[in-house]
Amino acid sequence: MKISTIEKCTRTSLIINKSIVQNNIQRIWQKTERNGIRLRPHCKTHQSPELVGNWLRDIGVETITVSSLQMAEKFAASGWKDILIAVPINLRELDGLIQLAEKIHLGVFVESAQVAARLAEAEAHQLEIWLKIDSGYGRTGIPSSNAEQILLLAKSCVSFGLNLRGIATHAGHTYKASSEQEIGQAYRDSIQQMLRLQADLIELGIEVEISAGDTPSASLLNGFGPVDELRPGNFVYYDLMQEDIGSCKREDIAVAVACPVLAVHSDRKEVVLHGGGVHLSKEVRKDRNGNPNFGIAYPITEKGWDLTKPGADMIRLSQEHGIMALPNGWSVLPGDLVAVLPVHSCLAANLLKGKEIVI
Amino acid sequence: MKISTIEKCTRTSLIINKSIVQNNIQRIWQKTERNGIRLRPHCKTHQSPELVGNWLRDIGVETITVSSLQMAEKFAASGWKDILIAVPINLRELDGLIQLAEKIHLGVFVESAQVAARLAEAEAHQLEIWLKIDSGYGRTGIPSSNAEQILLLAKSCVSFGLNLRGIATHAGHTYKASSEQEIGQAYRDSIQQMLRLQADLIELGIEVEISAGDTPSASLLNGFGPVDELRPGNFVYYDLMQEDIGSCKREDIAVAVACPVLAVHSDRKEVVLHGGGVHLSKEVRKDRNGNPNFGIAYPITEKGWDLTKPGADMIRLSQEHGIMALPNGWSVLPGDLVAVLPVHSCLAANLLKGKEIVI
Repeated sequence: MKISTIEKCTRTSLIINKSIVQNNIQRIWQKTERNGIRLRPHCKTHQSPELVGNWLRDIGVETITVSSLQMAEKFAASGWKDILIAVPINLRELDGLIQLAEKIHLGVFVESAQVAARLAEAEAHQLEIWLKIDSGYGRTGIPSSNAEQILLLAKSCVSFGLNLRGIATHAGHTYKASSEQEIGQAYRDSIQQMLRLQADLIELGIEVEISAGDTPSASLLNGFGPVDELRPGNFVYYDLMQEDIGSCKREDIAVAVACPVLAVHSDRKEVVLHGGGVHLSKEVRKDRNGNPNFGIAYPITEKGWDLTKPGADMIRLSQEHGIMALPNGWSVLPGDLVAVLPVHSCLAANLLKGKEIVI
Repeated sequence: MKISTIEKCTRTSLIINKSIVQNNIQRIWQKTERNGIRLRPHCKTHQSPELVGNWLRDIGVETITVSSLQMAEKFAASGWKDILIAVPINLRELDGLIQLAEKIHLGVFVESAQVAARLAEAEAHQLEIWLKIDSGYGRTGIPSSNAEQILLLAKSCVSFGLNLRGIATHAGHTYKASSEQEIGQAYRDSIQQMLRLQADLIELGIEVEISAGDTPSASLLNGFGPVDELRPGNFVYYDLMQEDIGSCKREDIAVAVACPVLAVHSDRKEVVLHGGGVHLSKEVRKDRNGNPNFGIAYPITEKGWDLTKPGADMIRLSQEHGIMALPNGWSVLPGDLVAVLPVHSCLAANLLKGKEIVI
């Protein structure tokens, strides 16, 4: 049955290797269990309550992270009762957020007094507030160095009667780290800042949880400090970008994009796949020679893809077409399928929603 | 009503300015009419039978281009009777292609004898065959310099009893051109090659049509030579990439991505939008200073977006977040909306399918 599912595949699809996903989940789950930390995986990677969502639940995960109200609603409909929307709250969706928070534990990120005032005004007392702290990534959140502003915001939330649950950070700069040591350092720095803030808040009589985490640190570290929860996302699938960082080995990558071969150009040793920017996304990495790389293709097998063969670089990508550099000794024909490991699995999975093949 | 539609927008959406789209369509339609050429616009840009598809039909367009069987089926269901799938034929979908070709004129690209033999074997006599010629882009097709192979393939098709309709090319290298003159030159070179092949085929007693075209040449040129049809796609929406090439002015760009403002960081003059790689795509261009640019944001108005204000560069993009560099004098608050002109409208429109707002 597994074989025939891939064999029957007629168009560009996402192959999900269930046992690799489950191994990836188990590895991180065991670490967080051992450390007494709640795992709140980010589901924007797979957006799939039916597949990965269920596999997470099977192992015991009870709390998840998403990136929009729509995604929260989808997972809530599938029975999840504790969901954190890990982008600064979208005030345009406040009505919907309040409605959902009547039914489940719904967390949101807040990073300004102005927004807190709006929530108070809307009597959004059910929403669980996480103050978003910037511990070095520089994307969202109040810089942790600005403790005064953070404490003031926490006090405002409390005085407004809002439901302040914690402080949250995402040390996204671990994605730019180039060694386990650098990732460990970035994570520990980030957590120290959070612990200092937590201590300051306790002095004010305000108890908060700490939410942190990202795939590189969750994958490479074994201790996480006294945080309450970790929010890695990509680890369920991994991808070439994570392999580059060192978060995973190539055999841990759990998804590949099955692409029909459209044309073979032996003269220039190139193969045209139906695998372009609308399938793989335009996310790009550098290959070993510093050239742009949009994925690495392997032969399809009944078990998914064959890593024992030399991979073929995806060297150019337009909207629909992907150009694969054909390695010596690998012969493909129009009508064959190949499996492309994506540079960024979250973006490929988003593009191929509804086109999954589970093996 | 127009205002309230944008005002009611709660999440990241694609704003389509109908009158700009219709002007863009009319401009190219008039040119092709004047030249007696059939317009076969590529619908992968919008993928929308309900909106742009109908606007194309309203002006008189009867033939379209798509990039997959699924897209062809969708447009056929909406009444289109002559559709060309402009990627080399995906043999894995042959059954579905043959079924659809029983109902409408369905064109496919063929570029090898092997594939032609497969079509003959499957008795795919209803499919309209276009031989794909590479006139310099180097992506798909038989190089036009290889006339012998092309003529042989044409003869094979005829002897197999296949329904050979024409020869097709896409001078995609016009996308890399930097002036109207270069685009004109690339287009004319490409067409000369096609005409030579057509003449060679006529000598063999094989009559074929010529299909060509791309948005830069369709937009900038006025004469197209004796081709039968043009297949530009992006021109309905345009985008910053096309503006960079010179195909359009900024006011011709017909779509923008409405993004909720999530956070304002006045200290570093940055605004965080809910507009990331899953909304805008990771397509990137260089701004006037050579820096990576992922879009240009404008204030939202009742008419869409306000180009009289200074645009704000989208300088970084992660999966969900987009970072906008806040220009002096533009004040935004969390909960506001801004309109981001995309770098590549086809990819943004693909990501925001089902989330369109027409104004």
